[in-house]
Amino acid sequence: MIHRYKLIVEYDGTPFFGWQRQEGVSTVQQRLEEAVLPLTKTLVTVHGAGRTDKGVHALGQVAHFDTERALDPFRIQECMNAYLIDVPISILSVGEVDGAFNARFSAIERSYTYIIVNRRAKLGLDENRAWRVIKDIDIQLMKSAASLLVGCHDFSAFRAAGCQANSPIKTLNSVEIERVNDKIFIKVAAKSFLYHQVRNIVGSLVKVGIREWHVNKFREIFESRDRNLAAPTAPACGLYFSSVKYS
Amino acid sequence: MIHRYKLIVEYDGTPFFGWQRQEGVSTVQQRLEEAVLPLTKTLVTVHGAGRTDKGVHALGQVAHFDTERALDPFRIQECMNAYLIDVPISILSVGEVDGAFNARFSAIERSYTYIIVNRRAKLGLDENRAWRVIKDIDIQLMKSAASLLVGCHDFSAFRAAGCQANSPIKTLNSVEIERVNDKIFIKVAAKSFLYHQVRNIVGSLVKVGIREWHVNKFREIFESRDRNLAAPTAPACGLYFSSVKYS
Repeated sequence: MIHRYKLIVEYDGTPFFGWQRQEGVSTVQQRLEEAVLPLTKTLVTVHGAGRTDKGVHALGQVAHFDTERALDPFRIQECMNAYLIDVPISILSVGEVDGAFNARFSAIERSYTYIIVNRRAKLGLDENRAWRVIKDIDIQLMKSAASLLVGCHDFSAFRAAGCQANSPIKTLNSVEIERVNDKIFIKVAAKSFLYHQVRNIVGSLVKVGIREWHVNKFREIFESRDRNLAAPTAPACGLYFSSVKYS
Repeated sequence: MIHRYKLIVEYDGTPFFGWQRQEGVSTVQQRLEEAVLPLTKTLVTVHGAGRTDKGVHALGQVAHFDTERALDPFRIQECMNAYLIDVPISILSVGEVDGAFNARFSAIERSYTYIIVNRRAKLGLDENRAWRVIKDIDIQLMKSAASLLVGCHDFSAFRAAGCQANSPIKTLNSVEIERVNDKIFIKVAAKSFLYHQVRNIVGSLVKVGIREWHVNKFREIFESRDRNLAAPTAPACGLYFSSVKYS
């Protein structure tokens, strides 16, 4: 009999070459697969809800793996966290789930938070954890632009080359933008995203926030579906994969 | 003529042996003095509002230094931040101040924030930036205990050996405790603090929060003025020197 376990995982993405296992470099997926090996005894694949890029963080990545061994979820969490003692990955929870559950395909909503520090001075505590934008950002302008994105649209203007999705049509459920002192938090939620979609959206929203682009220009670029017209991709270090909802 | 400049400084305390310059180790004060040397041409002392311990962070440490050179404050900030590029210290602002201003002695209130992560799982993103407390904390109980501390009291029970203050009598202006998901923020403000006072208070408040001590026991220990009865000092990594007020 096969047992399937669901993990909720937090990590600082800085020292990893992203989520996905790759030859010769340290990745989050590889670390998790190694951390569970003492329990499963055979190498298992840990399937994530989303493949975060190099430098991207997670507050609530979700993953699952299968094993023929009946394991106590609490023991899985304790053993994995003990194994991960020297790396900035933490298993926040473990539960046994039905074989129909799939961390990636059962997800009904994924949420990301992007953090900007809006100031001239270099980052001290937030180095590698936020994008520093020097020019003053007006978040009311960003909110006006962001409101155009909510709903079902063709997001080709914010789609990276190399995106493997079949279609550029996605439904953005919400965008929330909040400022706390010099930090700006941009929270987005959708069932799924195109490759680099969040970081590309943030890059263009910042152009509006710093008044380099009028909201109408943002709208024209979005409607043009031309990635070449949109702003550069915002840095990976500001992005946090925050949570995943399942039905 | 002597010019005095005031700095507001942010730092991640993890890689430093605290604020104060010491032979053979890297400290925040030493890094700042080295960073300003290309401008002042002679070594100056950078005087801080508070001497943070090894591993303690700052969001708004205040410091001043004197020089015979008339310098542009913006240029001081830019040059120091350029010099500090590889260390997690940032100069948030620089201004010229009157010779009567002293970062340490002119302060009328210092604020610290202590961050606890209240969960079983190891820290991922917050390693070295918070104290993980595994047992469930009831912040209402902590608030009841904390309210006993506000005002002018003999804080001997929370005073570290080696404290150089003349008197154990201090006036705590406020203690605020707030929970956001698994994080607990304890904010304290006073004109000045005894050595390890904040970390010793936090250690004992946690005893109350996890129901190991009744609030009455906390009160008895506080009133006993006996450091040996109070809880161990909370770890340095959870402490942030957040701001200083001047008249």
